[in-house]
Amino acid sequence: MITRYSRPEAVAIWSSETKYKIWFEIEAHAATKMAELGVIPTEAAEAIWAKGEHAAWDSDRIDEIERTTKHDVIAFLTHVSETVGEEARFLHQGMTSSDVLDTCFAVQLARSADLLIAGTDRVLAALEARAKEHKYTPTVGRSHGIHAEPVTFGLKLAGYHAEFQRAKRRLITAREEIATCAISGAVGTFANVDPAVEEYVAEKMGLQVEPVSTQVIPRDRHAAFFAALGVVASSIERLAVEIRHLQRTEVLEAEEFFDKGQKGSSAMPHKRNPILTENLTGLARLVRSAVTPAMENVALWHERDISHSSVERGIGPDATIHLDFALNRLAGVMERLLVYPDNMQKNLDKLGGLVHSQRVLLALTQLGQSREDSYAAVQRNAMKVWRGEGNFLDFLKEDPEVIVPDADLEALFDLGYHTKHVDTVFRRVFP
Amino acid sequence: MITRYSRPEAVAIWSSETKYKIWFEIEAHAATKMAELGVIPTEAAEAIWAKGEHAAWDSDRIDEIERTTKHDVIAFLTHVSETVGEEARFLHQGMTSSDVLDTCFAVQLARSADLLIAGTDRVLAALEARAKEHKYTPTVGRSHGIHAEPVTFGLKLAGYHAEFQRAKRRLITAREEIATCAISGAVGTFANVDPAVEEYVAEKMGLQVEPVSTQVIPRDRHAAFFAALGVVASSIERLAVEIRHLQRTEVLEAEEFFDKGQKGSSAMPHKRNPILTENLTGLARLVRSAVTPAMENVALWHERDISHSSVERGIGPDATIHLDFALNRLAGVMERLLVYPDNMQKNLDKLGGLVHSQRVLLALTQLGQSREDSYAAVQRNAMKVWRGEGNFLDFLKEDPEVIVPDADLEALFDLGYHTKHVDTVFRRVFP
Amino acid sequence: MITRYSRPEAVAIWSSETKYKIWFEIEAHAATKMAELGVIPTEAAEAIWAKGEHAAWDSDRIDEIERTTKHDVIAFLTHVSETVGEEARFLHQGMTSSDVLDTCFAVQLARSADLLIAGTDRVLAALEARAKEHKYTPTVGRSHGIHAEPVTFGLKLAGYHAEFQRAKRRLITAREEIATCAISGAVGTFANVDPAVEEYVAEKMGLQVEPVSTQVIPRDRHAAFFAALGVVASSIERLAVEIRHLQRTEVLEAEEFFDKGQKGSSAMPHKRNPILTENLTGLARLVRSAVTPAMENVALWHERDISHSSVERGIGPDATIHLDFALNRLAGVMERLLVYPDNMQKNLDKLGGLVHSQRVLLALTQLGQSREDSYAAVQRNAMKVWRGEGNFLDFLKEDPEVIVPDADLEALFDLGYHTKHVDTVFRRVFP
Amino acid sequence: MITRYSRPEAVAIWSSETKYKIWFEIEAHAATKMAELGVIPTEAAEAIWAKGEHAAWDSDRIDEIERTTKHDVIAFLTHVSETVGEEARFLHQGMTSSDVLDTCFAVQLARSADLLIAGTDRVLAALEARAKEHKYTPTVGRSHGIHAEPVTFGLKLAGYHAEFQRAKRRLITAREEIATCAISGAVGTFANVDPAVEEYVAEKMGLQVEPVSTQVIPRDRHAAFFAALGVVASSIERLAVEIRHLQRTEVLEAEEFFDKGQKGSSAMPHKRNPILTENLTGLARLVRSAVTPAMENVALWHERDISHSSVERGIGPDATIHLDFALNRLAGVMERLLVYPDNMQKNLDKLGGLVHSQRVLLALTQLGQSREDSYAAVQRNAMKVWRGEGNFLDFLKEDPEVIVPDADLEALFDLGYHTKHVDTVFRRVFP
Repeated sequence: MITRYSRPEAVAIWSSETKYKIWFEIEAHAATKMAELGVIPTEAAEAIWAKGEHAAWDSDRIDEIERTTKHDVIAFLTHVSETVGEEARFLHQGMTSSDVLDTCFAVQLARSADLLIAGTDRVLAALEARAKEHKYTPTVGRSHGIHAEPVTFGLKLAGYHAEFQRAKRRLITAREEIATCAISGAVGTFANVDPAVEEYVAEKMGLQVEPVSTQVIPRDRHAAFFAALGVVASSIERLAVEIRHLQRTEVLEAEEFFDKGQKGSSAMPHKRNPILTENLTGLARLVRSAVTPAMENVALWHERDISHSSVERGIGPDATIHLDFALNRLAGVMERLLVYPDNMQKNLDKLGGLVHSQRVLLALTQLGQSREDSYAAVQRNAMKVWRGEGNFLDFLKEDPEVIVPDADLEALFDLGYHTKHVDTVFRRVFP
Repeated sequence: MITRYSRPEAVAIWSSETKYKIWFEIEAHAATKMAELGVIPTEAAEAIWAKGEHAAWDSDRIDEIERTTKHDVIAFLTHVSETVGEEARFLHQGMTSSDVLDTCFAVQLARSADLLIAGTDRVLAALEARAKEHKYTPTVGRSHGIHAEPVTFGLKLAGYHAEFQRAKRRLITAREEIATCAISGAVGTFANVDPAVEEYVAEKMGLQVEPVSTQVIPRDRHAAFFAALGVVASSIERLAVEIRHLQRTEVLEAEEFFDKGQKGSSAMPHKRNPILTENLTGLARLVRSAVTPAMENVALWHERDISHSSVERGIGPDATIHLDFALNRLAGVMERLLVYPDNMQKNLDKLGGLVHSQRVLLALTQLGQSREDSYAAVQRNAMKVWRGEGNFLDFLKEDPEVIVPDADLEALFDLGYHTKHVDTVFRRVFP
Repeated sequence: MITRYSRPEAVAIWSSETKYKIWFEIEAHAATKMAELGVIPTEAAEAIWAKGEHAAWDSDRIDEIERTTKHDVIAFLTHVSETVGEEARFLHQGMTSSDVLDTCFAVQLARSADLLIAGTDRVLAALEARAKEHKYTPTVGRSHGIHAEPVTFGLKLAGYHAEFQRAKRRLITAREEIATCAISGAVGTFANVDPAVEEYVAEKMGLQVEPVSTQVIPRDRHAAFFAALGVVASSIERLAVEIRHLQRTEVLEAEEFFDKGQKGSSAMPHKRNPILTENLTGLARLVRSAVTPAMENVALWHERDISHSSVERGIGPDATIHLDFALNRLAGVMERLLVYPDNMQKNLDKLGGLVHSQRVLLALTQLGQSREDSYAAVQRNAMKVWRGEGNFLDFLKEDPEVIVPDADLEALFDLGYHTKHVDTVFRRVFP
Repeated sequence: MITRYSRPEAVAIWSSETKYKIWFEIEAHAATKMAELGVIPTEAAEAIWAKGEHAAWDSDRIDEIERTTKHDVIAFLTHVSETVGEEARFLHQGMTSSDVLDTCFAVQLARSADLLIAGTDRVLAALEARAKEHKYTPTVGRSHGIHAEPVTFGLKLAGYHAEFQRAKRRLITAREEIATCAISGAVGTFANVDPAVEEYVAEKMGLQVEPVSTQVIPRDRHAAFFAALGVVASSIERLAVEIRHLQRTEVLEAEEFFDKGQKGSSAMPHKRNPILTENLTGLARLVRSAVTPAMENVALWHERDISHSSVERGIGPDATIHLDFALNRLAGVMERLLVYPDNMQKNLDKLGGLVHSQRVLLALTQLGQSREDSYAAVQRNAMKVWRGEGNFLDFLKEDPEVIVPDADLEALFDLGYHTKHVDTVFRRVFP
């Protein structure tokens, strides 16, 4: 995890303190239910909560014990017994380490997903505000990086809004995928622990019951989770790349907010660089890099091997923390984005009206000219403009094969024609 | 696409014939609606359907035209006009190539998803039948490849069933992700085509309307689709690896069906190899390899660039056809899997009762011995068995610190203890 | 493999005909050596060559036999005996299928590497020619997509040349990695085949001897091979993205050659799109997608499992054929690239001299002003230009804190200053 | 970076202290040369070294400055001036931040590569010792997880030794790929810095000169570097998977060393799990996950964008530190591996001599029987053994179509036959 690309609330989910607190809660809730089932004494369960609920578990001490036991959960339980006393021996009855580890991981991923969903909401809010602000700001639509036809800047942003609505849905589904609890014992048979314990702990921890666990919660869930993060990261990349394009010197239709005191370049004082969105482009790559190892983690051997663990120690915090940061950085970029409608208009005018070529083509075919002849006529005149020889409308008027009357031709160059359905699209996105 | 790993029904979706048939339908449905809107003559739309509906489009001829135009949709339209006649000039009015290409791709992916869902159903049926057949067939559960505690073979298969239920849900969601229609013109503004056309074509083609398309359907949808395929492939890999393990010479608890006349090895006539599940392991890698390029495809420039196209020409057919094949091969493996309960029992007995070590541990702690002492006592005797010095139960009886009475010790070695909740789990999976 | 992105010479390497021809050669060379060693009759080896050397092996017949034997090499040998007669029984003595399959795969990959190296040479030749042509064509250097300082277009291309020199070296190393021969029998012990046979076949097939094979040539070699292809593909992507940027409407410093009769868009006749380099961007993603599965193929179980095989049936031809196509397409793009020096100059002038800001900064510090004050002075004036308020040189002259005399300031705006080491760099690249 | 999977010497390379020390050296060496060239005063360069060489740069202070400047190199230079005084203004003349950052990154990667090469040497030493120890320890070779023919354990290890020799060569090449120095100014033109400075700094820092840098060292170098790490990680995975297989309960031919006091499972005291090699399997996935983002980093825009930076802040330390740890962990596993020759022999005998089936096949064909008939005869008897009906040798003796005399048949079951070329292979690996 790269501190520079992290927010404290996301980091906190993955701290030792949080982890041990969750471990204690899982063990103690299980004890409560076991006491109810008569498996352990009620007083033991009560004592565990009384002495443990507000205890501050000592990571260093646990690490020290682990150096002997080489087993993290045993080390934790040993440490708990140092605080809670001998009732601690009733903890973990019939459970296996993974019952604790996997359920804790589920809690951490679910909490991370909540942050990611909140981050997406912030992006959505920024996109909606800016989309409505620029609903009718004309700008050129580009395919292949080449001017195509007019759109509005608001329409562009509405498209991103729709994409981040999907991102949110994917994150909600991803959260459901991993928010499950397994307390099923060494190989998932409940031989030594009643299924009622699992149900109780699940409810207390805000999770669903895992229908069949082996020793572990099946890793196809986690693969689906990280895959969803990879898709969301890719959507971030798309918007980041858009901003970077708009900020290019020759385009300059929008710019990341530039702070007073900020230096764009140590060598070139004139520079204002889209470094935030470039950074987001890189973060997208980093988040995506979790997807393949998460998928490779699925095929654990038999009832489990532990090869997934080291992977998840990396990608668990890294992918969630960096994606959380990226969503919030993106929201900030969009909230404060400097938008230059004048430059948009200037660029739109750059090709001397060529962006209206399709309308002319359609008009010709509707006058009965064949598609092939119409295309040739329009292309012939367009290429002259392309070579810088003059203005598109003028050329069309002069061309005898362009049989549209001059007044009608002029009407074809109306920008409003292209924005007449902006409202239709907006209603789809912002119902 | 590797022919050897394909089924004809999956391949057919991606043939030129299918593609051109879908293209025609999209264009012709659009024409019908345009006629209704008064944009083109009703007779034109009718003539198009009359002459084109059952036409056999000629791929070679279209390729020939494309060599001149360097544009596939224009080549197709030119060819259509050769069959349909001059009314064909009313086709594609105000539309852009991507309207046709992307909507067609959505239809092909949706149909592929239908096959994948059907393949998953076949896997589920095989797993259910075999799980119920072996609901109480005892076998050893293994963590880290090491014997842990008893499970049943049916329970193992029930776990895979639950995983493939999730696979099915993911495929259904994936299908929804990509089953959208865009007929919105050059940059998605509907400048030259009424949104009503899009709605009509969407309905006719069995798709949803894409809320905001640029020139293209946004590629985050496709990234999510292929990511889902990668997760499903990873689940296939897990089951394949399980079978491969069970077929190992030393384990031999199950075996792929072996045909008469089949040769396991050109050099070693005695071999019976798990080649189908090894093949599935490889196919899983191949299907997964589509995930990263699909995610890299998301960040197209502005209203689109065409970098995604070559990628999709590869992964579109390849990932869907290979996954379809893999699901059906896996179903066949499970339907005909040879299961050897005797060998399962033999392996279960191999460690002389060590698999019951946890019960002994629990019994000791419940008699009031500390967890640490209990663990040490059990481990001490277990290590003797591990070193091949004798039988676990005998050692326990002899050990004075193992304070469980002999008769109770024997009862702890009861297999039924481990299967008592099999039915609980089965009810979760097969309600 | 996507036919549209393939060249016949690359495809031919992977045809059934080529494969069976190589299989025959491996088997027949082995027979020759075995005869020399007295393992089989000399007449048998001679008869095999006499009847088989120019035989046309029948793929369909081999497929037919394989449907019974379910084993490709056995099917091939059976078919060979139909042509060669009973002496064919002396073929394959003590060998295992993988001896043939893996050695053949090595030959195919080595031949593919030869094509890739030739393709790289073609790219290098194009880059060298264009670099020398535009050695002193001034253009703006851009960091973060923002104008930085002047460079020359030739210098840019020289950088790509250096990168493709590295690509070539990587391909040569990759070829060495996989060009090995294994004829070592069922588990690599040479139990039934003399190591001398391996040495002989290796030499005849132009390969090195594999020092230790198990049943297979170790797959780390192939992982390294496909990884190298992925790196080369990424270099292609970088140059492709550069061209795409240069062709953007607002930049237009270079353009892909545009054929007569070519149509840029079915809807917009004015479009000239960088479709070849966009295509190369996509192909780079496709080629890279082979890297991860190739790495996942390394950890075969024990002396081999066959999970790698399906992967390699895909990525073997796909990655090599598509990369071969991409290299040649890239070479074509560079050979015919339309370069617009006037537009380069126009863009260079766009910022009113801001690209010289660093020189002014340096001049100020050299006059003894602190770095911080100098930076502030230059940035202050630069920002005015950025806001479109006027000309950089004028502002500097007016600013009292810019203590450089006016004449010296003008000299700082000399373009030649930036090109004085172009020759130095060229000597490094084209020695 | 996961602390648990790191060694201090690898971590130290990536500390702030190390980074700032390298930055200072690069800047100060550049100053020395600039002084020699007369660009800055000699006394300034001398003062910089005198005051800065042993200075302890204060990370917190630099971070504090960066919060204002939003630029790390400027923050560093500002901090240097706080220690060195006003001569510090002569630092960085004509240089750009990337000159420092990229050259520093090259130094860090090169030092990391040195550790990786040393780690590989340790693995090689362990493999050589154990291979020679078990040169003639018989064990069964397995293909598809199924017994094939006898090999020796030493031969298996020799194969891994050959693979790690290749790993070492790949790391050496990877080191060469990235050990380059760029001091070429804002866009690589040396406009404000003499190429002689670059040559001088390169030599002092132990690097090669980068032939053409833009603003940055081209990222195809780094892609090749991380790809090599991914291949090495995959080789680690292969050996790790081998050990995991050998430690399976049913196989138990080798075992990871198991410490006193170690607990295999919190629930099952009898467990001895191959957790180190499972961990290595997971670490291999983690290291490999750096490959794709490194390749995606190549296509920076024009003379650079900064999207690669966040990626490299992650994968730079993570991939090198984890791979360094994995190599050393693997070496430890191999050094202390418990090997069980008795179990190897027991497994070898398990199939009642079936592992000799190929020799019988060859003997039959050499007596003139057709390959097809010979195969059928051997397979027929092998399948009886497979079904547990008896002993292979006995069946063969009884079968009238097995025309080999009984005494000769017995000789065919000689283990020495399979080990006769072990020495040949060893000479290839350990010359």
